[in-house]
Amino acid sequence: MDRSICFFSDYGYTDDFAGVCRAVIARLAPQARVIDVTHGLPERDVLAGAVVLRNTLPYMPDRAVVLAVVDPGVGGPRRPVALRSHGDHLFVGPDNGLLMHAADADGGVSDAYELSNQELWSVPLSATFHGRDIFAPVAARLAAGLPLRSVGAAVKAEALDRIDVPEPRRHRDGLTAIAVLVDRFGNVALNLRAHDLEKARLTETVELLTGDERYLAKVARTFSSVRASDIVVLIDSYGQASVAVSNGSAAEVLGLDAGDEIRLRRLG
Amino acid sequence: MDRSICFFSDYGYTDDFAGVCRAVIARLAPQARVIDVTHGLPERDVLAGAVVLRNTLPYMPDRAVVLAVVDPGVGGPRRPVALRSHGDHLFVGPDNGLLMHAADADGGVSDAYELSNQELWSVPLSATFHGRDIFAPVAARLAAGLPLRSVGAAVKAEALDRIDVPEPRRHRDGLTAIAVLVDRFGNVALNLRAHDLEKARLTETVELLTGDERYLAKVARTFSSVRASDIVVLIDSYGQASVAVSNGSAAEVLGLDAGDEIRLRRLG
Amino acid sequence: MDRSICFFSDYGYTDDFAGVCRAVIARLAPQARVIDVTHGLPERDVLAGAVVLRNTLPYMPDRAVVLAVVDPGVGGPRRPVALRSHGDHLFVGPDNGLLMHAADADGGVSDAYELSNQELWSVPLSATFHGRDIFAPVAARLAAGLPLRSVGAAVKAEALDRIDVPEPRRHRDGLTAIAVLVDRFGNVALNLRAHDLEKARLTETVELLTGDERYLAKVARTFSSVRASDIVVLIDSYGQASVAVSNGSAAEVLGLDAGDEIRLRRLG
Repeated sequence: MDRSICFFSDYGYTDDFAGVCRAVIARLAPQARVIDVTHGLPERDVLAGAVVLRNTLPYMPDRAVVLAVVDPGVGGPRRPVALRSHGDHLFVGPDNGLLMHAADADGGVSDAYELSNQELWSVPLSATFHGRDIFAPVAARLAAGLPLRSVGAAVKAEALDRIDVPEPRRHRDGLTAIAVLVDRFGNVALNLRAHDLEKARLTETVELLTGDERYLAKVARTFSSVRASDIVVLIDSYGQASVAVSNGSAAEVLGLDAGDEIRLRRLG
Repeated sequence: MDRSICFFSDYGYTDDFAGVCRAVIARLAPQARVIDVTHGLPERDVLAGAVVLRNTLPYMPDRAVVLAVVDPGVGGPRRPVALRSHGDHLFVGPDNGLLMHAADADGGVSDAYELSNQELWSVPLSATFHGRDIFAPVAARLAAGLPLRSVGAAVKAEALDRIDVPEPRRHRDGLTAIAVLVDRFGNVALNLRAHDLEKARLTETVELLTGDERYLAKVARTFSSVRASDIVVLIDSYGQASVAVSNGSAAEVLGLDAGDEIRLRRLG
Repeated sequence: MDRSICFFSDYGYTDDFAGVCRAVIARLAPQARVIDVTHGLPERDVLAGAVVLRNTLPYMPDRAVVLAVVDPGVGGPRRPVALRSHGDHLFVGPDNGLLMHAADADGGVSDAYELSNQELWSVPLSATFHGRDIFAPVAARLAAGLPLRSVGAAVKAEALDRIDVPEPRRHRDGLTAIAVLVDRFGNVALNLRAHDLEKARLTETVELLTGDERYLAKVARTFSSVRASDIVVLIDSYGQASVAVSNGSAAEVLGLDAGDEIRLRRLG
């Protein structure tokens, strides 16, 4: 059976970008299922995309083709690549770090290829829309059974580009974290996991410092354990520590955007 | 044949929420068709979601599994449930009233179950994303043929939570209505149907009062029967009385949001 | 095999409009693949929709049913139509020019019909949602094999409504163009193609005049050949000349919206 294609991008929904890629796939792999996981990845934010891929990979069908495009360097020297993880997912996208956290979490990269076989691409090749012209057609052919080694020249896994999630900074009384993702409800995911909070003994009441402002927050398990409009720090459904406001938007209340720093100080 | 899954949520399109649920469904019910009816339901607005479900149900395929998630109480005491309507649709979602207007319109609830069979859920269970961990996997298994009674303990239909569409207030010279839904074009659907307008003899020219402002509007059948930028009250495609502006946004012109009151006074 | 349905609209993603049309299609043509190319076409902007249809048609599957709805005149005298192009795509939508650029680019219209066969429509017919009640059910039946001539009365191709892409104005030192489409990244597509730039000898450095402002821009092949935040004029992936800002939004930097004029003056 064909592999499913799990499609992630920052193409958004106002344009035809993702839809045209889906049409290209339908021509080349009419039997393949396409799951549009999201096209709302933050524009040009490779790190945020890498985190979403890593978070969601465990929920994808087995032996998926992960087609992922956040590609600010399109048309430049960054290579288009396809990888296989030891868990036997395939990944197709730009070699800018986007694919690596997910591949690492799936056992690491077992083999990697540059997409240098131009016979697999759409013609004419554009300089600015490699999703349509390179990534989607290659992903479609892989889903339909093309052997991975046919996509181009082998590349060493060590030579692939990486992008790191920044480490939190540790203080005597807490941590300084970074806002990695802001969701539709205004929940702000940080570069922290449950064990980071525990190690820093941030387990009851904490002070949150953003810019010049201070807020009190409770470390909680769910929204429903606090009152409406309380600020909470909770472990979200992907295991990330996240700042949330019950029935409100933490991003708005605390004035937080992706990339901002936030300091968590122990009080309780 | 598998039942189709008709998926409604307030998950939006910027995050992976709806896409991950679709991936979960693809793993468990690879043959089931998924129709993403909308993931743009107003955030946390259970009533608006209930109205959209009721409006659109007649257009869904027969014997559908309606998977619906607007769930501000996730992680709290509200139960996850699955229902069958007398028309043989299945409904999966939170027991907060979201499902009930649609089920009522389809002949009423014939049987109801709490989703207490944890073997059907995704592991590990998160506290904040029951769409992914409870509702989607149960909906998928139901679409693939699991008997409804296998999802958990039977619940009496009378014990299910309800949420009422507020009644309009009647005056000697008209009605006070509530804005229930605002669509992309700025059309504002009210808690009124054609017969409410007729009974109140609001059939020609009406005065609309919102906050301190007054507007003249015509009761019309289509946009095209009026001039550009005229305000009209028309019966929309779901049978709801709706305030609209020809080639414009009534929500903007009249400053209306969902939940706002609007008074309609008879003039003509 | 059923034809694929390629669905374009300005229905957006916050409402159920596109989803309900998909449900209607699923009832009538359960085997047909539906490709949601985009529902983010600019609201009520028939010209922008026509340009997107024309741009993307070459990427659609062969023998597609193009279902396209940008329909500000819904409920008025404009006719609902279905066309066949010489390339054997079928087109279903309003007769307001939306379909014509794509059909022309596919060899022109070979036959055209008014959708006057009411037996194919959904009942009851609404005055405001012909996507759901006329276009989607007819497109579904065509995808499932209904002969085109069954949809209604034949219409002469010459009698179909047209909408023209405005011509650029030529000056001694350059061109005045119109912004036709603004995409998610803020790239602004103009009513110019590569040969227009060449004929006007706009091939190196140009001055862009919008309202009272002037900007310097380079004519470039890709984003990556310029520095971050430089303004460039490039040929986009659909062959349109487009104003872009490397790692930024040209629409924001230059204050451009669809429909605005922009003058390009030769410097280099």
